[in-house]
Amino acid sequence: DAMAKSKYEYVRTFEHDPVLLPNTWVVVRLDGRGFTKFTELHSFAKPNDACALRLMNRCAEQVLRDFGDVVLAYGQSDEYSFVLHRASTLYGRRLSKVITAICSTFTAHYAFQWPQVFPADRPLRAPATFDARAMCYPTTANLRDYLSWRQADCHINNLYNTCFWALVHGGATAQEAQARLTPTVSSQKHELLFQQFKTNYNDLPAQFRKGTVLARTSLDDRPDGGDDRRRKHIVVLHEDIIGDAFWSRYSDVLD
Amino acid sequence: DAMAKSKYEYVRTFEHDPVLLPNTWVVVRLDGRGFTKFTELHSFAKPNDACALRLMNRCAEQVLRDFGDVVLAYGQSDEYSFVLHRASTLYGRRLSKVITAICSTFTAHYAFQWPQVFPADRPLRAPATFDARAMCYPTTANLRDYLSWRQADCHINNLYNTCFWALVHGGATAQEAQARLTPTVSSQKHELLFQQFKTNYNDLPAQFRKGTVLARTSLDDRPDGGDDRRRKHIVVLHEDIIGDAFWSRYSDVLD
Amino acid sequence: DAMAKSKYEYVRTFEHDPVLLPNTWVVVRLDGRGFTKFTELHSFAKPNDACALRLMNRCAEQVLRDFGDVVLAYGQSDEYSFVLHRASTLYGRRLSKVITAICSTFTAHYAFQWPQVFPADRPLRAPATFDARAMCYPTTANLRDYLSWRQADCHINNLYNTCFWALVHGGATAQEAQARLTPTVSSQKHELLFQQFKTNYNDLPAQFRKGTVLARTSLDDRPDGGDDRRRKHIVVLHEDIIGDAFWSRYSDVLD
Amino acid sequence: DAMAKSKYEYVRTFEHDPVLLPNTWVVVRLDGRGFTKFTELHSFAKPNDACALRLMNRCAEQVLRDFGDVVLAYGQSDEYSFVLHRASTLYGRRLSKVITAICSTFTAHYAFQWPQVFPADRPLRAPATFDARAMCYPTTANLRDYLSWRQADCHINNLYNTCFWALVHGGATAQEAQARLTPTVSSQKHELLFQQFKTNYNDLPAQFRKGTVLARTSLDDRPDGGDDRRRKHIVVLHEDIIGDAFWSRYSDVLD
Ligand SMILES: Nc1nc2c(ncn2[C@H]2C[C@H](O)[C@@H](COP(=O)(O)OP(=O)(O)OP(=O)(O)O)O2)c(=O)[nH]1
Ligand SMILES: Nc1nc2c(ncn2[C@H]2C[C@H](O)[C@@H](COP(=O)(O)OP(=O)(O)OP(=O)(O)O)O2)c(=O)[nH]1
Ligand SMILES: Nc1nc2c(ncn2[C@H]2C[C@H](O)[C@@H](COP(=O)(O)OP(=O)(O)OP(=O)(O)O)O2)c(=O)[nH]1
Ligand SMILES: Nc1nc2c(ncn2[C@H]2C[C@H](O)[C@@H](COP(=O)(O)OP(=O)(O)OP(=O)(O)O)O2)c(=O)[nH]1
Ligand SMILES: O=P(O)(O)OP(=O)(O)OP(=O)(O)O
Ligand SMILES: O=P(O)(O)OP(=O)(O)OP(=O)(O)O
Ligand SMILES: O=P(O)(O)OP(=O)(O)OP(=O)(O)O
Ligand SMILES: O=P(O)(O)OP(=O)(O)OP(=O)(O)O
Ligand SMILES: [Mg+2]
Ligand SMILES: [Mg+2]
Ligand SMILES: [Mg+2]
Ligand SMILES: [Mg+2]
Ligand SMILES: [Mg+2]
Ligand SMILES: [Mg+2]
Ligand SMILES: [Mg+2]
Ligand SMILES: [Mg+2]
Ligand SMILES: [Mg+2]
Ligand SMILES: [Mg+2]
Ligand SMILES: [Mg+2]
Ligand SMILES: [Mg+2]
Repeated sequence: DAMAKSKYEYVRTFEHDPVLLPNTWVVVRLDGRGFTKFTELHSFAKPNDACALRLMNRCAEQVLRDFGDVVLAYGQSDEYSFVLHRASTLYGRRLSKVITAICSTFTAHYAFQWPQVFPADRPLRAPATFDARAMCYPTTANLRDYLSWRQADCHINNLYNTCFWALVHGGATAQEAQARLTPTVSSQKHELLFQQFKTNYNDLPAQFRKGTVLARTSLDDRPDGGDDRRRKHIVVLHEDIIGDAFWSRYSDVLD
Repeated sequence: DAMAKSKYEYVRTFEHDPVLLPNTWVVVRLDGRGFTKFTELHSFAKPNDACALRLMNRCAEQVLRDFGDVVLAYGQSDEYSFVLHRASTLYGRRLSKVITAICSTFTAHYAFQWPQVFPADRPLRAPATFDARAMCYPTTANLRDYLSWRQADCHINNLYNTCFWALVHGGATAQEAQARLTPTVSSQKHELLFQQFKTNYNDLPAQFRKGTVLARTSLDDRPDGGDDRRRKHIVVLHEDIIGDAFWSRYSDVLD
Repeated sequence: DAMAKSKYEYVRTFEHDPVLLPNTWVVVRLDGRGFTKFTELHSFAKPNDACALRLMNRCAEQVLRDFGDVVLAYGQSDEYSFVLHRASTLYGRRLSKVITAICSTFTAHYAFQWPQVFPADRPLRAPATFDARAMCYPTTANLRDYLSWRQADCHINNLYNTCFWALVHGGATAQEAQARLTPTVSSQKHELLFQQFKTNYNDLPAQFRKGTVLARTSLDDRPDGGDDRRRKHIVVLHEDIIGDAFWSRYSDVLD
Repeated sequence: DAMAKSKYEYVRTFEHDPVLLPNTWVVVRLDGRGFTKFTELHSFAKPNDACALRLMNRCAEQVLRDFGDVVLAYGQSDEYSFVLHRASTLYGRRLSKVITAICSTFTAHYAFQWPQVFPADRPLRAPATFDARAMCYPTTANLRDYLSWRQADCHINNLYNTCFWALVHGGATAQEAQARLTPTVSSQKHELLFQQFKTNYNDLPAQFRKGTVLARTSLDDRPDGGDDRRRKHIVVLHEDIIGDAFWSRYSDVLD
């Protein structure tokens, strides 16, 4: 039988797993598949559902626990990006292994932890699924531009969605809301929120406006925390990561 | 802001998703990550846990429901192989999309459906995760050899494991059982089971010996079934797929 | 020093040569770089220079001599396609090796054999260079479609160019010739040649109309030749390879 | 006919040219195919043939002229490495195009310029061919390590070969020479040359010991040269590129 099996084993030579270029920052980005429908089915609050975000963040934290080479993660909406250290040799940097292991870990915890995060009257009706991809960034500047891109995306979408749902909750139809917003630039959207809905956009929860950063650092983010060089731990932040301040403060994250 | 975002968008040019060669049979194989530990933690019956197999099969069936281009799947142990039709254009045959979407779907259902399959006193303690990869096979002969390889693997492992656990349940230590089995060939293992444990290996459940095939066919596998050309449906089989009989009978699977 | 060298050797891990899928027909197509200019510089006859074609064919023949796995080649204009047998393991099917070795062999002979083919008053003024790429075709039908595509391209271009240069040699400007031809379909171009230039297109040399096939066969193409099963040799043909006749006659080429 | 052709054009979808990661230093290394035989056939001086090296260097210089994105090249023995600037977008960084265009240019000039470099009594008997590959290096440190690796290789081989041919020219058989050298370290080889052959290794031509660097710089390498910031030109050097001195002096090469 072993001999019989061996005559089929040549099929292994058809396996070909591309390798992620060594000494580059590897980013694995997951994105919810069909979350437009999934969020409807589970009556997510609009535009931001606090439970849903908490669950996403817990799943991401689990990825950081399971994959020690992930130094930072950034999440917003139905997506999460995980940054593997440029020195990582996780799975020999095999593309398929890296993206499926991380994607599967996130997905598994999404279903597993749902009941711990959502109230009993919001059960999981159909499991959420995610796709994943990997990118290699040769320089820290490229990596920061990637993260800035995602956070700028978060900001633009959230400002738009906040206006949109304010208008709709205020009685406008979807078409009317869209027509009202399409010609506006960013400052006009701030204005609209302030004038019409007495909302200062900058007072909305930072998590909604900035997304969530999980970083592995020895710097403590508690008010009384300090720089505990003994051991890195994971901090959860909702801060600007486009400017330099974050990277100066948490300079050990990319070390 | 959109302008600000646009200056970061160049990072997209670093994305590079390899494409699966057109007009080839694509096989996506999932395998449980660290199932040696996972099966211990959840007290899987040895060598085969009927609930666990049922759950694997349900997850696989879900993959066939969600991905119409999957024409056949073969599962055994902690693994499942999915065959995409050679004409499939799923996700433009982008490797990352294909493997993560299928892997995530399977993973999500494993956690989601666990309580429907396992009794209440066997709760899911930690979620199972899977890796996935894709292979392209240019000919039907290559594809059949791939499937034969997996079924031969199932057979060899199951025969060994059946003997091993029989010996251990009969009082041998793991070392003793291994020492007893290492020098034996297949026929001697059959002999051992028969002589020492009054077990005819071929009488054990076909699911354990042959693994599980899910096939999309218009041929009905119920005794009174027939060839219902109106519509393909999914059949669940525990048959030999190495010989020609299966492929003659279910000839429409690869059409 | 060897120790010193060894500390740099890690740079080899950055090498990553993609592999051509096993059991597929591999086609390597070369194309002259900037031949619009090269053909001007060397006063190629328009639209077809017999010396130039002879040189291309000799270079291709050299490729077949040096690479035993090349079973067939097809050339036209400044391009040549080489078909590696699906069972070929040339250079372990490493993409870079395969395309550069063939491209370099062709290029080297182009410069080397130029003086043997062109008269002394047409010396090589600047060496010709070629790019190369590889494609994998899973089925013989795909391979034949590829070759049909190149021969159809040859036909269309040659018919157009024959008309164009006939008009220009007859006194038209390039603009006038183009304007005259743009609205015409194939049959009208035949008509034009016949009416205006008394040229029956089908009487032009087959090499111009059909391109050149080099095939490794045991069938002899000499009128008195036969089927010499003792040994394959290379035949040079200018025939239709779109229809079935060629493939029936030279059925051993793809064996 | 165009319609007929269009039905074959789907074969283009099987083309898949991998892309070299943006913002990385791309190195294309060529290596003579079967030069052990080629150098015998053309009676190359042992261990270093001055004409042969001159020809290699001229071909490399031609590559720098034709490909403006090549900022530096390093050659030794039958190989040459070309460094494309990390910002290069040559051929959209398509792997196949980049390696075949450079390889073909080098190959073409090798045959073309041979008679200009070798005396008339040493004609080219069979054309030389080369293979080529590309590597991406994310950092300048990686790139420098690559170049150090090649120069260390040059040094080790040349020291060995110098000793070997000294012994053989001195009457030893190849076996004896090898037996004499195998157990020696670098310093012992220096010693051997000095004691037995009155040769100070460091007095041998730098080109043999260090290989050849072609760099695009505005710094002039003539003794009376200076820093001509007006325009970069190509300098030919036989210097150490492992240490920092070269990179400090020619700091504009990688700018
Ligand atoms: N109501 C609500 N919707 C959300 C929330 N977070 C994400 N979503 C929705 C908004 C979008 O419809 C969707 C995310 O957009 P995507 O571009 O990822 O689209 P989707 O997942 O539908 O399709 P895809 O499979 O990713 O191509 O998820 C939330 O907190 N509340
Ligand atoms: N007791 C028991 N164990 C099973 C059953 N099915 C699979 N397993 C175990 C046997 C093996 O230890 C393991 C599958 O072998 P693998 O080679 O996939 O190893 P594992 O998943 O531990 O590591 P991996 O992450 O795949 O490299 O799962 C079952 O039904 N019952
Ligand atoms: N006069 C003349 N021209 C020819 C002959 N064979 C090929 N050519 C010319 C016609 C075209 O201008 C050119 C081939 O077209 P391509 O599309 O390959 O263009 P070209 O090589 O200029 O650019 P490329 O580097 O391939 O993108 O070579 C010939 O026998 N006589
Ligand atoms: N006599 C002599 N031989 C040289 C000179 N430069 C290179 N060679 C020879 C020494 C080696 O046999 C050969 C280069 O070694 P390679 O490892 O590249 O081997 P070769 O080209 O034979 O095989 P390959 O096709 O590259 O695998 O070229 C030279 O200047 N004089
Ligand atoms: O936001 P993305 O990158 O997921 O964009 P997309 O339009 O969904 O495209 P893709 O097919 O790459 O997921
Ligand atoms: O059975 P496989 O193919 O998973 O074999 P493996 O030894 O686990 O290797 P891999 O690292 O490819 O999962
Ligand atoms: O005829 P081809 O395939 O060479 O077509 P092209 O337009 O020259 O494109 P490419 O950049 O692939 O050579
Ligand atoms: O010196 P290299 O890299 O050419 O080494 P090789 O042993 O010739 O190997 P390859 O098959 O990669 O040319
Ligand atoms: Mg998407
Ligand atoms: Mg989504
Ligand atoms: Mg999204
Ligand atoms: Mg495995
Ligand atoms: Mg496993
Ligand atoms: Mg397994
Ligand atoms: Mg081209
Ligand atoms: Mg051309
Ligand atoms: Mg052309
Ligand atoms: Mg080599
Ligand atoms: Mg060589
Ligand atoms: Mg060499």
